[in-house]
Amino acid sequence: MPNPTAAMLVIGDEILSGRTQDTNTGFLAGKLTENGIDLREVRVVGDGQDEIMDAVNALRARYTYVFTSGGIGPTHDDITADSIAAAFGVPIDVREDARAILATNYANPEVELNEARLRMARIPDGAELIDNPVSKAPGFRLGNVHVMAGVPMVFHAMVESILPTLTGGQPLLSETVRFNVPEGEFAGKLSEIVARNPDLSYGSYPYVRDGVFGSNIVVRGTDRARLQEARAELEVMAAGQGPSG
Amino acid sequence: MPNPTAAMLVIGDEILSGRTQDTNTGFLAGKLTENGIDLREVRVVGDGQDEIMDAVNALRARYTYVFTSGGIGPTHDDITADSIAAAFGVPIDVREDARAILATNYANPEVELNEARLRMARIPDGAELIDNPVSKAPGFRLGNVHVMAGVPMVFHAMVESILPTLTGGQPLLSETVRFNVPEGEFAGKLSEIVARNPDLSYGSYPYVRDGVFGSNIVVRGTDRARLQEARAELEVMAAGQGPSG
Repeated sequence: MPNPTAAMLVIGDEILSGRTQDTNTGFLAGKLTENGIDLREVRVVGDGQDEIMDAVNALRARYTYVFTSGGIGPTHDDITADSIAAAFGVPIDVREDARAILATNYANPEVELNEARLRMARIPDGAELIDNPVSKAPGFRLGNVHVMAGVPMVFHAMVESILPTLTGGQPLLSETVRFNVPEGEFAGKLSEIVARNPDLSYGSYPYVRDGVFGSNIVVRGTDRARLQEARAELEVMAAGQGPSG
Repeated sequence: MPNPTAAMLVIGDEILSGRTQDTNTGFLAGKLTENGIDLREVRVVGDGQDEIMDAVNALRARYTYVFTSGGIGPTHDDITADSIAAAFGVPIDVREDARAILATNYANPEVELNEARLRMARIPDGAELIDNPVSKAPGFRLGNVHVMAGVPMVFHAMVESILPTLTGGQPLLSETVRFNVPEGEFAGKLSEIVARNPDLSYGSYPYVRDGVFGSNIVVRGTDRARLQEARAELEVMAAGQGPSG
C-alpha cells in the first residue's frame, strides 16, 4: 500500500516579505518522513482570506493530510480560523471548551480573557481541538486539515500532539554518501546505478564549500538491507573518484 | 499603479523530506521587497515532471514574475528544464551558446564536457540565458519564468544577474516595534490603530523567548514620513504596556 500523502500550508506575510525564515516546514517534514507520510507539496500564502481558502481547498482535495502553520492568534491579522471555516462552508464561533482552556491562562479571566483573546476560542463547527501545552490557545482539526500556530515552539508542540492520531506508512530510510567532486564527474555512472535499482530512489544534492564543488548522494527506500547494499555500491563509486577541479 | 507580483517555486525532494532547509525563498523575498515586487506565493514540489508543470502553469498565469530554484544540474534527478519546456509546450535541446559557456569550465572540453554535463546546456526554445558567475552552467528565462539553480551560492548570483532586468515598483518600507507582553494585551488597541491607518499595513509576529511571550509589530508602507508617524504611535503604545505574565 502506498504511503499516505501530505501538504503543508504556511500562512503569513512575514515569510513572503523575507522578514521571517520559515522553519516549521522543515520540522514537520522530518517528523512526517519518520512516520512514513510523504510530504508532497508546500505552499506559502499571505494573510488574505481568498488566498488561504483557495490553497486549503486545493490541497485538502489532493492529499491525505494537510497541515497549516500561522494566523491563529488574537490580533487583527490572524484570520486563519475564519478562512478555514469559509473554505469548508461551515459556521464559526467562540466554543465553550476552547474558552475554558484559554481561561486557565489567567488569574482573572473575566478581565484578562478580553475580546481579542476570545478570538482564539473561535472554532469552526465540527472541528476537534489540538492540544497546545505551551500557551494553551488550541489548534484544531477539521476534516483532514490540521490548523496550528506559527510560533515554532508552539507549532512543534502541536505537531507532537497530533502525530499519534495520524495513520503512518512505512518509514522512508535513507543513506548518504559524500562525493568530493563535481556532479558532472559521476552523473553518468550514477544514472546506471539508478537504472539497476528501481526499488530505490536516488538524489544528488550538490554544494559549494570553500570554493570546492561536491555533492551528497542520498539513496532512499523502506528496506534497510537493500539500502546497505546501495550504500556499499555508492562508496565503491566514491572511492574511484579522485578530487578534481 | 500596484506593484508587480511574484511567485517562487522551489523544486526538490530534499526540501520535502526535511533533509535540506530551503533558504533561497528568504533570500529572494528580501531582494523582491527591496525592489517593490510583491512576493505573493511560494510552492515547494518534488522532482516530478507533472508536479513541476502543474505548479509552473498555475503560477505563471497568475503573477507578473515566477522564479524557480533547483533541478538544473547534470544528474538524473535534474528534470526542471525539460519540465519547464513541457509546461510551455516548446521543444528543448542542447543549445550552442550554452554549450560554449559550459566548455569554458574545462581544460579539455571534448572529454570533460561529457553527456551528463551537456544536459546543463539543454535550453527550451525561445529562452534567454541567465548568467551564472559561480559555476558557469546557465539558468534561463522563458516568458515570465526565471529558472535558477538550487545551490544557494549559485541561486544568489543568478538572482543578482536578473534583478536589473525586472521592472520593480515602489519599495515597501517597514518599521518594527517590539512589545514585551503577550499579543492579547494590546490586540484591541492595535485594531483601533489599524482601522485609523488604512494606507499602512500592520502585522503582529509573536515569539516565545526564555519562556516569555512577546511580539514584534511591523508596520509597512511606501511613504517614509507616514511610517515614522506610525512608529511613534506604536512606541507610545508599547511604553504603556508593562511586562505581564
